[in-house]
Amino acid sequence: MSKNFAIIGVGGYIAPRHLRAIRDTGSKLIAAVDPKDSVGVLDQYSYEIKFFTEIERFDRHLEKLRRGPEENRVNYVSICSPNYLHDAHCRLALRVGADAICEKPLVINPWNFNALEELEGETKHSIHTILQLRVHPALIKLREDLQQAKGMHDVELTYITSRGPWYQVSWKGQADKSGGVATNIGVHFFDLLLWLFGSTQGIKVYHADESRMSGFIELEHARVRWFLSVDKDDLPDAAKAGGKTTYRSITVDGKEIEFSEGFTDLHTRVYEETLAGRGFGIKDARPSIELTYAIRAAKLSPMDGLIHPFLKR
Amino acid sequence: MSKNFAIIGVGGYIAPRHLRAIRDTGSKLIAAVDPKDSVGVLDQYSYEIKFFTEIERFDRHLEKLRRGPEENRVNYVSICSPNYLHDAHCRLALRVGADAICEKPLVINPWNFNALEELEGETKHSIHTILQLRVHPALIKLREDLQQAKGMHDVELTYITSRGPWYQVSWKGQADKSGGVATNIGVHFFDLLLWLFGSTQGIKVYHADESRMSGFIELEHARVRWFLSVDKDDLPDAAKAGGKTTYRSITVDGKEIEFSEGFTDLHTRVYEETLAGRGFGIKDARPSIELTYAIRAAKLSPMDGLIHPFLKR
Amino acid sequence: MSKNFAIIGVGGYIAPRHLRAIRDTGSKLIAAVDPKDSVGVLDQYSYEIKFFTEIERFDRHLEKLRRGPEENRVNYVSICSPNYLHDAHCRLALRVGADAICEKPLVINPWNFNALEELEGETKHSIHTILQLRVHPALIKLREDLQQAKGMHDVELTYITSRGPWYQVSWKGQADKSGGVATNIGVHFFDLLLWLFGSTQGIKVYHADESRMSGFIELEHARVRWFLSVDKDDLPDAAKAGGKTTYRSITVDGKEIEFSEGFTDLHTRVYEETLAGRGFGIKDARPSIELTYAIRAAKLSPMDGLIHPFLKR
Amino acid sequence: MSKNFAIIGVGGYIAPRHLRAIRDTGSKLIAAVDPKDSVGVLDQYSYEIKFFTEIERFDRHLEKLRRGPEENRVNYVSICSPNYLHDAHCRLALRVGADAICEKPLVINPWNFNALEELEGETKHSIHTILQLRVHPALIKLREDLQQAKGMHDVELTYITSRGPWYQVSWKGQADKSGGVATNIGVHFFDLLLWLFGSTQGIKVYHADESRMSGFIELEHARVRWFLSVDKDDLPDAAKAGGKTTYRSITVDGKEIEFSEGFTDLHTRVYEETLAGRGFGIKDARPSIELTYAIRAAKLSPMDGLIHPFLKR
Repeated sequence: MSKNFAIIGVGGYIAPRHLRAIRDTGSKLIAAVDPKDSVGVLDQYSYEIKFFTEIERFDRHLEKLRRGPEENRVNYVSICSPNYLHDAHCRLALRVGADAICEKPLVINPWNFNALEELEGETKHSIHTILQLRVHPALIKLREDLQQAKGMHDVELTYITSRGPWYQVSWKGQADKSGGVATNIGVHFFDLLLWLFGSTQGIKVYHADESRMSGFIELEHARVRWFLSVDKDDLPDAAKAGGKTTYRSITVDGKEIEFSEGFTDLHTRVYEETLAGRGFGIKDARPSIELTYAIRAAKLSPMDGLIHPFLKR
Repeated sequence: MSKNFAIIGVGGYIAPRHLRAIRDTGSKLIAAVDPKDSVGVLDQYSYEIKFFTEIERFDRHLEKLRRGPEENRVNYVSICSPNYLHDAHCRLALRVGADAICEKPLVINPWNFNALEELEGETKHSIHTILQLRVHPALIKLREDLQQAKGMHDVELTYITSRGPWYQVSWKGQADKSGGVATNIGVHFFDLLLWLFGSTQGIKVYHADESRMSGFIELEHARVRWFLSVDKDDLPDAAKAGGKTTYRSITVDGKEIEFSEGFTDLHTRVYEETLAGRGFGIKDARPSIELTYAIRAAKLSPMDGLIHPFLKR
Repeated sequence: MSKNFAIIGVGGYIAPRHLRAIRDTGSKLIAAVDPKDSVGVLDQYSYEIKFFTEIERFDRHLEKLRRGPEENRVNYVSICSPNYLHDAHCRLALRVGADAICEKPLVINPWNFNALEELEGETKHSIHTILQLRVHPALIKLREDLQQAKGMHDVELTYITSRGPWYQVSWKGQADKSGGVATNIGVHFFDLLLWLFGSTQGIKVYHADESRMSGFIELEHARVRWFLSVDKDDLPDAAKAGGKTTYRSITVDGKEIEFSEGFTDLHTRVYEETLAGRGFGIKDARPSIELTYAIRAAKLSPMDGLIHPFLKR
Repeated sequence: MSKNFAIIGVGGYIAPRHLRAIRDTGSKLIAAVDPKDSVGVLDQYSYEIKFFTEIERFDRHLEKLRRGPEENRVNYVSICSPNYLHDAHCRLALRVGADAICEKPLVINPWNFNALEELEGETKHSIHTILQLRVHPALIKLREDLQQAKGMHDVELTYITSRGPWYQVSWKGQADKSGGVATNIGVHFFDLLLWLFGSTQGIKVYHADESRMSGFIELEHARVRWFLSVDKDDLPDAAKAGGKTTYRSITVDGKEIEFSEGFTDLHTRVYEETLAGRGFGIKDARPSIELTYAIRAAKLSPMDGLIHPFLKR
């Protein structure tokens, strides 16, 4: 039977991927909330979506539905709010008798997982998250290959995605709201590396400012040099010359991992998996959240180890 | 020389048309403001746009530029804020030494034009607005034809554009913020009719609720029956059957005016005209604002005159 | 043992009465939330109160305390938010394992009681409200007298409390947020009358605008003519001449009920009763909420019955 | 003739002093604005005050009055908004043809004075600020005594005023909005010292965190050791034992300056002076703003000079 969805943060940047995933999995969006009211995007999906600008009124509506006929109840709440509100909105979902499907990062600080896990137990509802790289066919293939040939690998992760001054003015630029660069733009890649190469054995952070971070991670099966930035000046010259504004590269033992294709509909894939009972939960999200938290909390290391080449420039 | 622009309300629905018009006229966007911070759209245009979430800080920045070197000054402020803030934001533009290019409706209540006109005189800067239908080639042609063959015409204006529940929750659903249906979705068409058929001689309003309005207007050269709605149930059956969500029709003496094509880049055309000194100002905007105000303020008439066929249903 | 309190809406007008009641009952305020940050008033009570501007972060804090040592848990949440948020904030209280003590009116629409009552059952926590007139010694005495001498009484309720233009601009002036005049400024008196004279048998509403309402209520033991206003022009001439800005009168069979004294510390009295297990709950609040809702929903009656003398003027 | 006032930030902590000063100087408050709508305080002053929650609508109203009969125009705008908005609100005042009376600090960053001074010249209206210690009788007397007996003095400034956790959550805790501790709670005292002892010759800052700052200033006629804090743990033991939450002391050559009395009506005194053409302007405010800016921007000095005794603890 078709599932009923509600969505939190529908006016934001990432919401359209969730809206499409809801539609493309044959689900039905019935309620939405966002503090800002510029949400005409909803009309592309349905004219029957109740909309609220206050979380309290949204909560009232979902509670009312919860106490009505089963076919009207909200089964899933999609969460696209700013990172630091994710856990509160997951609690809202569980309390009104729904599962949560929450954007990454599921939480900023790992200790918030504990309360969420207890609440899952109390409510018998689950929290799912979007770890979309784990459903990417090329990366699934890579993982299988790697698991056949264990051993220690040298990995270089580079991700530079240009953002204008608005980024630092917005909640994304405030570490207590976004978690900073490593969490906000890096968590996907750190999750990927943990999933490919095993758990964290040690970290070093060499550089950290509001626009870029760089460091080293030892995983069970990889030594990772990483560099993340939202500053266009960090783009390699070739990218600049080509008018590119994003540069993304993961190399394993010097060989580039190719996964540029098929990036946009991965949200839908994750939704399909989640609806089929094979979604990603707190257990899956925890290692990358713990790693990004450790990176955020780390003191800078002297630059005497394996250092990403972009940092030396 | 390339002109410098700032934009107010950059996070909203209509802003992208202004952003494109700024770019496509070879102008340079250097500052932007919106109370909400989800404005990643800016990165499609430039990485050098100062962004603010508070109008006061935006004003400070523009004042600072105004007192600096001439090449850094803001020449134009594009205004895409909610309707009821347009005149305040026009004042801001003039005060910092810039012209304003303001979305329709320029103001909700016509008496606010007086203060704006005086301020134009005081500051030697001008307020321009977007009356994009007046630059539509097919409509320009129509106007020429009509002016050759004056006389009295029978016009039927029908515009139904479906909006979900969010519309009434947003500022667009509040009459004191948007002006209501006739002003918010109708002003373009009323301006067109005034431009084609001459000034208002009399009006009747037969129906007015938060989702639809209908009435009669006598112009110098036309008797207009009009019907405006944001309720999808008002769509004609053929449109519904075809899965259409918008129905727009203007007939003159029973003949459909065709102007579906070339609708999206009209903002750029208006910008070109404005930069060339041929933009639309308060004088141009006033008749349609006075008409829509009169419609809003009118008492309902008994349904005994020329009535739009959709209303009788 | 001393009880731990949290408070929602601490920056508003009524919060100081709750702050004093918390202190004067020997309780401890440990957390507070208000969307506005001008809450220096807290420093009069304690320097150990965690403060939040977002309900989500407040919720996180209370959830964390709930899962910690018992002596740190929040036992009561005092709710001083705008009326239309009361029920959502009561739910928040119950969900984090606390009781709610909520300002009047507990809800605006009586059907919201049902979900709250079910949630009380699910959580084993209770919702209490402030019906402070019921703990007023003079009114308790009056009630005892009346119960000895049942019969039918003629009651006239007049309450005019001047408010400037800010009132209509604020949430108090929006019927969907405050419930309108009868609910927002009248509910206390309607509760009093129901408590004194028994349940509602019938109502008439003769006048209703955003500043004043007037009507008739038949109770088991009283015929009530009532007039409520926030417009200073409605004050009787004697009050105006004396520079008074409020006029309050309840007469029973033409005799004035005197209860001007001892009005300000009644919140503390209600808190004492609540902490002692004798507070007022949904059952107590329901009749006056149902009555004020019925008044709000009523069509105007022709003015042919018992009419308050102020209305005829 | 009685002057007309408007006020910005009427819902905040300091507004009541301005409201009283407006009333007590026989002036008339006719308009007010605050983003929050909990402003029942207005009813203590008048029922004829137009109220707005948006600065744009307030601006519209003042522009309309400016273009109406002279007796209705706003002559002064009192500014009680957060510090970082002061200069924008001063500009608003000048632009609508009024003088500004602005809370301290007039601006956070001294370069904003330049634009304000130019705007004063353009508009022929003036910006005044509240330097209330300069009208304190005991301090005027002290200044006269000091000017007779010039020479070098040893001054110790200590100001500890306890604030709970809300302080750091609010705008006051954000350096870019309040200027930090030295600016927000210290500027009055620094202005006093500059007024008493002449201009700044040099500064050292020994300690700076979000709750406390301490340093040394050399003035023409004084060596100043200063310590400012909002942390109650910094109170001297005697103050703590006595249940005091504020400790304020200025000693000159070891002798305590007494100015505890007559502190609350100083706003009214400043208003009287301002209305009489003897108010404090940008010229008066500039030295203390430059000093507090220098303190904020300074690198920490090694602790090898004259150090406030509270810092050594």
